[in-house]
Amino acid sequence: MLPRGRPRALGAAALLLLLLLIGFFLFPGDLDCERSEREASGGGGDPGSLPRSLTPRVPPDERPRPRGTAAFDGDPPAEPGGHNGSDCIPPRPRPPKCELLQVAIVCAGHNSSRDVITLVKSMLFYRKNPLHLHLVTDAVARNILETLFHTWMVPAVRISFYNADELKPQVSWIPNKHYSGLYGLMKLVLPSALPPDLARVIVLDTDVTFASNIAELWALFAHFSDKQVIGLVENQSDWYLGNLWRNHRPWPALGRGFNTGVILLRLDRLRQTGWEQMWKLTATRELLTLPATSLADQDIFNAIIKEHPWLVQPLPCVWNVQLSDHTLAERCYSEASDLKVIHWNSPKKLRVKNKHVESFRNLYLTFLEYDGNLLRRELFGCPRPPPPGAEQVRGSRLPFPRGGSTPLLWWDPALSGACPPAPPSPSSSPPSPQLQRALAQLDEEDACFEFRRQRLTVHRVHITFLPHKPPPPQPHDVTLVAQLSMDRMQMLEALCRHWPGPMSLALYLTDAEAQQFLRFVETSVVLSARQDVAYHVVYREGPLYPINQLRNVALAQALTPYVFLSDIDFLPAYSLYDYLRASIKQLELGSGRKAALVVPAFETLHYRFSFPSSKAELLALLDAGSLHTFRYHEWPRGHAPTDYARWREAQAPYHVQWAADYEPYVVVPRDCPRYDPRFVGFGWNKVAHVVELDAQEYELLVLPEAFVIHLPHAPSLDISRFRSSPTYRDCLQALKDEFHQDLSRRYGAAALKYLTALQQPRGPT
Amino acid sequence: MLPRGRPRALGAAALLLLLLLIGFFLFPGDLDCERSEREASGGGGDPGSLPRSLTPRVPPDERPRPRGTAAFDGDPPAEPGGHNGSDCIPPRPRPPKCELLQVAIVCAGHNSSRDVITLVKSMLFYRKNPLHLHLVTDAVARNILETLFHTWMVPAVRISFYNADELKPQVSWIPNKHYSGLYGLMKLVLPSALPPDLARVIVLDTDVTFASNIAELWALFAHFSDKQVIGLVENQSDWYLGNLWRNHRPWPALGRGFNTGVILLRLDRLRQTGWEQMWKLTATRELLTLPATSLADQDIFNAIIKEHPWLVQPLPCVWNVQLSDHTLAERCYSEASDLKVIHWNSPKKLRVKNKHVESFRNLYLTFLEYDGNLLRRELFGCPRPPPPGAEQVRGSRLPFPRGGSTPLLWWDPALSGACPPAPPSPSSSPPSPQLQRALAQLDEEDACFEFRRQRLTVHRVHITFLPHKPPPPQPHDVTLVAQLSMDRMQMLEALCRHWPGPMSLALYLTDAEAQQFLRFVETSVVLSARQDVAYHVVYREGPLYPINQLRNVALAQALTPYVFLSDIDFLPAYSLYDYLRASIKQLELGSGRKAALVVPAFETLHYRFSFPSSKAELLALLDAGSLHTFRYHEWPRGHAPTDYARWREAQAPYHVQWAADYEPYVVVPRDCPRYDPRFVGFGWNKVAHVVELDAQEYELLVLPEAFVIHLPHAPSLDISRFRSSPTYRDCLQALKDEFHQDLSRRYGAAALKYLTALQQPRGPT
Repeated sequence: MLPRGRPRALGAAALLLLLLLIGFFLFPGDLDCERSEREASGGGGDPGSLPRSLTPRVPPDERPRPRGTAAFDGDPPAEPGGHNGSDCIPPRPRPPKCELLQVAIVCAGHNSSRDVITLVKSMLFYRKNPLHLHLVTDAVARNILETLFHTWMVPAVRISFYNADELKPQVSWIPNKHYSGLYGLMKLVLPSALPPDLARVIVLDTDVTFASNIAELWALFAHFSDKQVIGLVENQSDWYLGNLWRNHRPWPALGRGFNTGVILLRLDRLRQTGWEQMWKLTATRELLTLPATSLADQDIFNAIIKEHPWLVQPLPCVWNVQLSDHTLAERCYSEASDLKVIHWNSPKKLRVKNKHVESFRNLYLTFLEYDGNLLRRELFGCPRPPPPGAEQVRGSRLPFPRGGSTPLLWWDPALSGACPPAPPSPSSSPPSPQLQRALAQLDEEDACFEFRRQRLTVHRVHITFLPHKPPPPQPHDVTLVAQLSMDRMQMLEALCRHWPGPMSLALYLTDAEAQQFLRFVETSVVLSARQDVAYHVVYREGPLYPINQLRNVALAQALTPYVFLSDIDFLPAYSLYDYLRASIKQLELGSGRKAALVVPAFETLHYRFSFPSSKAELLALLDAGSLHTFRYHEWPRGHAPTDYARWREAQAPYHVQWAADYEPYVVVPRDCPRYDPRFVGFGWNKVAHVVELDAQEYELLVLPEAFVIHLPHAPSLDISRFRSSPTYRDCLQALKDEFHQDLSRRYGAAALKYLTALQQPRGPT
Repeated sequence: MLPRGRPRALGAAALLLLLLLIGFFLFPGDLDCERSEREASGGGGDPGSLPRSLTPRVPPDERPRPRGTAAFDGDPPAEPGGHNGSDCIPPRPRPPKCELLQVAIVCAGHNSSRDVITLVKSMLFYRKNPLHLHLVTDAVARNILETLFHTWMVPAVRISFYNADELKPQVSWIPNKHYSGLYGLMKLVLPSALPPDLARVIVLDTDVTFASNIAELWALFAHFSDKQVIGLVENQSDWYLGNLWRNHRPWPALGRGFNTGVILLRLDRLRQTGWEQMWKLTATRELLTLPATSLADQDIFNAIIKEHPWLVQPLPCVWNVQLSDHTLAERCYSEASDLKVIHWNSPKKLRVKNKHVESFRNLYLTFLEYDGNLLRRELFGCPRPPPPGAEQVRGSRLPFPRGGSTPLLWWDPALSGACPPAPPSPSSSPPSPQLQRALAQLDEEDACFEFRRQRLTVHRVHITFLPHKPPPPQPHDVTLVAQLSMDRMQMLEALCRHWPGPMSLALYLTDAEAQQFLRFVETSVVLSARQDVAYHVVYREGPLYPINQLRNVALAQALTPYVFLSDIDFLPAYSLYDYLRASIKQLELGSGRKAALVVPAFETLHYRFSFPSSKAELLALLDAGSLHTFRYHEWPRGHAPTDYARWREAQAPYHVQWAADYEPYVVVPRDCPRYDPRFVGFGWNKVAHVVELDAQEYELLVLPEAFVIHLPHAPSLDISRFRSSPTYRDCLQALKDEFHQDLSRRYGAAALKYLTALQQPRGPT
């Protein structure tokens, strides 16, 4: 045993001795390379073992060809021993402890944004190092991913955005037939697009899934020779051999060529060697004889490598197991006990046919459906800046990452890029020290602890989860705003039939439910035809439904000047969308008039009923007892001020006064007050909002031809809890009291009337 | 590069040379052990690195004391260099490829059965080796786990059960104060309880979670010296130091002692060294002066090790990171970048207070909520027996593991144990070659593919998910049988109030929803008071609700002679349970009379209504229009044969005849025909069952005082799909046709009447 502090040489000697001993110890009496070779055949016998190509040696000639761990039939051996070369098994490369790893991904559009999140989840699941993600995005993806990462708050992850639109001119001259389009080519320009001081980066396609720690991949940089600048895995198909079909003329490549789904780039060396000129020259020359790239950047990378083979460091095949249609990948993974990265590089993606595809799908689905909240895990063993005076704050509840003094390890607003930042929504607003303190001060023994914590929980938000076209700007346009969870999904089709205008809907879902929702929309003719409905997924966390946080997310994402604040169980009159726009115009709300237009609410107790096509028909149903004014039996106070009697006769909008517990459905300008997020679960969530409107002196104007009808549904779990739990009711009362205190603070004496109203005798809340 | 087939000596030399080279390559110019020591401090610097105690060396004296990776303050160094000893970093132990790993777990009762599943999920997630689980269980756990593993069908996992009750006498003489009770002591008797040819086993507590590949732990066996028989991690608290409080007198231990949550046992050597006598002698002697064990088996293991210290091989602390109340574990994991196994060894379990507990909880919740279906992944890289002529069958849909010829790698019925096997339920019945063929023959292009696949899907089933007391045997007792998913959970309390007897309910849930359900029951006063309600979780898989498979699971688990086959949206008359038992007795059903007692069904359209306390009250509500006969408006055929007009007047049970589409709610003997699992989603699922009853010549007897009332709810997604999709309706028709063909096959000419009835003109299905 060596005492501490001995000179370096002695330490080195001791280490070597130890390695020798361990060598004997681990492979006692079984050191013949026949066995080791059998297990390592192709280099993948040991998880993370290096392939032959990564053991230090002199290449036999100047044309190193791909020698991943997959040795393919008919592939002539490149050196004595061929693909059965017996280098034995070197130990696993040592992941650099706590080193910041750099990753670049090109991502554009709604669908790729979903893909990249699954990729990132798989990466975060296994990583033990801090990460810096460099995201080259269009405006759509940036908007989505900025909000997502802001609200996700994974420790030790930094995000930088780069504007893909600015990079387009550099690649748009290249004709490309690949489905990835222009964005597929952008990997070529990363050396100039990424910050000049960034020396190394792992570049990933959005359709890869990690099954291991990315640090092991990063560690392969250490094996680059002085000349090597690009690490790649051999292409696992015969595409570049050019014999797939008659007249198939692929771009030039070394042997089977390389796949660019996973790339290790030495950016520093690429810049030094004049990469930009190099690839442009090669592409230009090849395009003299070839009409276009078929596989985007990959064709150009391969053409360059064919010309300058010393640039490439072949990587073990397990780092890019390619599930293309007629993949030869099985030769790789059937030998390896450890898959590292799976690449869904068939245009069919998960639907690709493959003997083992069910197993690969299960790996992919693991991360697709993985609860991303659980990745809010601290890294153990890496230094962490002490949180500023918030030692008691719990990791997963933080409104924003701690450690502002060392931003490198945390979320970091964009370094570059010209996209406008996403409009701040309350649940993704910057962290306030007050909020941090509030979290730290929560008392777990408090009977209302759940309510208070739920209110402070920052939910992960994925805005525009599905493709969405923003409505064209129109001065009187109005967006229907609502929120729902899984149990109301069957309302969406009917809602779409009743409201032909734009909608902004917040969905409270788990990651797995979000996928069910996706399939639901894809299989619905009605829903998949609509591009003006924006679905914003707010990921579930905590026991109470954060109804007002959901409303605020949907409200913040509405893009028209006006919003109709509705609830998911209501179907609007078929004419409502047109009528509201006409009313907004007629009432001149655009000229700064502060008004809330009340849409009277009714209800039916029957699942099947024929929806009235006019006010006259509605009144007839009302008189027949088939319809009722909303919650007439249970809670008339909520809508009584709408004055249904007057509405029956009204020909023009009329003013009504606020009264206690009034909670009408209203149309307001988009910049209206937000909902109070303290109201979670059942009770008082809309009431408080209408109080706020009144306090800010919004006129309340009832529209004579507008109506919505509530459809029946079973009582929610929250209302059941409210009814059965005295604590629940007490907590709601406590929240109401605090709300009124805050009102007084903000509006002074003017808020007195709300408190007075509250103290009057009342029915059930 | 060595050519193949050289002699062993040369191979060995080459390997060593390679290790030397790699050594230089990985740590270029930085081989001073000061750095290595800093990173490895405590041995945990590199994931999977060996602690000093695992490097081959001669212990300084005959009393090796725990030297895990955690070096604790105030712990005198046991050798020169102390806990900062500088052995540098040996490489990661090499997991044995494809070796069958043996794991033993003691598990008793409903709650531990849930725990052990989470442990197994974490283990399966990371494993790459075939596993053999040796489960020492009581009858309850065996019943649960046998069904679970049978229906889970994870490839390359073998399960053996051992009867804990038989082992009790061997440990019941030891007074024990630990919360684990008698079962906590059973780890002591594993060397004799496990098969005599089993040489090595990893023993796990049910409250550990894996965060790494168990093969790495198994590999540590290779480092046992000839004398060592037990591998253990040091205890990460000061308990055994005896200074926690005044008069704290722990059992004897070496220093801080060892924790037995994770044990490596050399069973072969233990048997040779007379383990049984050894531990009994030690326990007996210590119990002369100590009143009882405080920490169950752990006290006895430590006392033995104190006496025979050469028996123990200390393991790196990361293999048992102990989250007890005042744990010192942080000293371990703050140094290690890689946690391997987390041990929730506080009685508070997840509620333990700890600076980093949120992060640990997230790791735990990952597996708690992990979709276990995704673990039906094949092992790549390990030889797999070819499936018998079913190459196209997809892994995750298999009714039963393939490869019957090599049972070692697959599910294997119990090796030992006296528990009776669980009653076979249709979804966990043994695999039929027909079913395998049916799966292989499914055509993905078939419009009804989803229906057919759903029908053949074997769902993972966790019976008696919550503690449950079987009802005492009574000859006329009746169990209410129903099924539900998450959206009907709020029905459970009302149902419990209406039905005071036993219930068997199948719940169709995801793993995450099962946890929500657990919390729901725990926080409900009504539900948590009932021990006679058995909840059976059937895990979700596929797009269609497998309604009849669920009914069959609930039916198979009913333990009374009679069952009331109901649906979750119905509330029974308060008196129904008593009335049914009296009717069964009165009608002498016990004497082999084949009868189905019809319980007439009604419905209300109002959420709040006062439930009639008698038939007279019900009839009054019916006359007042507040109640209707069930589905009177939409589908009167379903219940018309019950003859409500006659029921109004009836004083005694009366016979009715089967008619097309009749689907009454009935009371039948438990051994009644099962539901036809081909009917998934909406439609005809009960109808087919009643046809089957009629075909088997059950009398249909309507009970004059019995009734149930259906409460309103929103239409299910399945009924919405049925209404909107012609394909859905066509597929249902195809299923009905096939059902009738099967009927004809089984009942011959007698089945003609069903076909004839089907061909008559009809309303909507």
